[in-house]
Amino acid sequence: MTTLGFVGLGIMGAPMASHLIAAGHTVYLNTRSAVPAALLDAGGKACASAQEVAQRADIIFLMLPDTPDVEAVLFGDNGVASGLSAGKTVVDMSSISPVDTKAFSTKINALGCQYVDAPVSGGEVGAKAASLTIMVGAAEDTFAKVLPLLQLMGKNITLVGGNGDGQTCKVANQIIVALNIAAVGEALLFASKAGANPAKVRQALMGGFAASRILEVHGERMVKRTFNPGFRIGLHQKDLSLALQGAKSLGVALPQTAGAAQLMQVCSTHGLANLDHSALVRALEIMANHEINGT
Amino acid sequence: MTTLGFVGLGIMGAPMASHLIAAGHTVYLNTRSAVPAALLDAGGKACASAQEVAQRADIIFLMLPDTPDVEAVLFGDNGVASGLSAGKTVVDMSSISPVDTKAFSTKINALGCQYVDAPVSGGEVGAKAASLTIMVGAAEDTFAKVLPLLQLMGKNITLVGGNGDGQTCKVANQIIVALNIAAVGEALLFASKAGANPAKVRQALMGGFAASRILEVHGERMVKRTFNPGFRIGLHQKDLSLALQGAKSLGVALPQTAGAAQLMQVCSTHGLANLDHSALVRALEIMANHEINGT
Repeated sequence: MTTLGFVGLGIMGAPMASHLIAAGHTVYLNTRSAVPAALLDAGGKACASAQEVAQRADIIFLMLPDTPDVEAVLFGDNGVASGLSAGKTVVDMSSISPVDTKAFSTKINALGCQYVDAPVSGGEVGAKAASLTIMVGAAEDTFAKVLPLLQLMGKNITLVGGNGDGQTCKVANQIIVALNIAAVGEALLFASKAGANPAKVRQALMGGFAASRILEVHGERMVKRTFNPGFRIGLHQKDLSLALQGAKSLGVALPQTAGAAQLMQVCSTHGLANLDHSALVRALEIMANHEINGT
Repeated sequence: MTTLGFVGLGIMGAPMASHLIAAGHTVYLNTRSAVPAALLDAGGKACASAQEVAQRADIIFLMLPDTPDVEAVLFGDNGVASGLSAGKTVVDMSSISPVDTKAFSTKINALGCQYVDAPVSGGEVGAKAASLTIMVGAAEDTFAKVLPLLQLMGKNITLVGGNGDGQTCKVANQIIVALNIAAVGEALLFASKAGANPAKVRQALMGGFAASRILEVHGERMVKRTFNPGFRIGLHQKDLSLALQGAKSLGVALPQTAGAAQLMQVCSTHGLANLDHSALVRALEIMANHEINGT
């Protein structure tokens, strides 16, 4: 068994690390607050810093909220980089900037170490069930080495390309999901205001070119008004910020993504940031002074 | 067999009428130019006007380009309304305004006749193969009466609701299709500009919440640069105009639909209106000065 490390044991990281421990690996752990007792009871080893994790483990996983967190844990005081020695591997499973990821990987490679970006989709449910979708940017031989470990945490695992490409794919995913939610929201709101039954319209559209996972799942949430998360609007706002900041640095205009981000802003302004992202339809409803269920 | 009529024998109407004739019905025909010889050879009967079609047939189908065409054929000089008598049925299969459709149906009902709005999706290919998706707005008993005839032209046939709801559903369909195309375009352009392989990104995204018919079909067209129609941008522009005019009259803001219409305008401005609507990505590429295949 490989000796592993895991930094960042929040809602996502804790269940992900538990699967590595349950498979029999020795896993060194560190997080901002205290390491969860359940992970220690299961056999995980608490470390005082990310540096110590990197000193003790051969493959170090990160699961952190945002780009600055990953930068601090990698390159800050008592960070991972200060504890690495040649031949070790860093696997960042956070969803962060693709551009910054390429810079991070270059600095880790310069230490004689491998870097893998492996952001996930599937949320807390997927983390607990070890059914995450994982989008990987890595060298092929490094991917082959970490794949059996990723398979302990996820099911749908794709090597998209080199470092940064996993994060790029995750951003692309979040763009499409947000814009498809807005598409279903505008279509069902139009239909409802025109006097049609949005549930029947959704049903009729499922058979044709309008068909999507979002029409199926989030369209149903809009019709049934079940807006408990799921994936929170506030988190999707962060992902669209990543998309728009990345696009700006790349010199790409993403007008529809910018529009969807504004709709999410309307939701946040109205105190809806903690609802599921299917509640983006609420922004459209507020603007139209009409709800798709007719009220 | 019921005696039928068909007004509007263009790219869509001609093959649709041919299926009715082939099933053994007597079909009275009228169109702006001469009735196609193939339809007459097959047994169709040419009429001098839409009025004459309405006088001779019990159920009269329309397949026309736009709302003003339907209005003229129904209520203009020598139009359908002037030839109707009580108990006859008008089935409009054109894609036109839901709001105007409700007004048309009211006027036809006042003559003691039934009205059906039954717009289609599936294009010329679907019309020829009798595999159109048909979204129907009608009273239930009228729907039951015309269903066997619609089944000669299409496969996926849904009664969405009362008059106008078929057209509303078609508009909702065109909104989602346009916005999903824009979503895939922005996501793949971002990925390509960030240095990832858009074909691999598309493949990775097909397994998750970003999955859609548009990502599958139109995403592949974007990656392979196969922009021959398909469904022309110019026609989709007309449909989005219907959506935005309808939304304005209903008091609904559709900001993402408005944005997609602007992207299609960029395509038209650059002479691309006759390409398939997947070429909406060209508007984004022109703005970014970068094509997703890396050129």
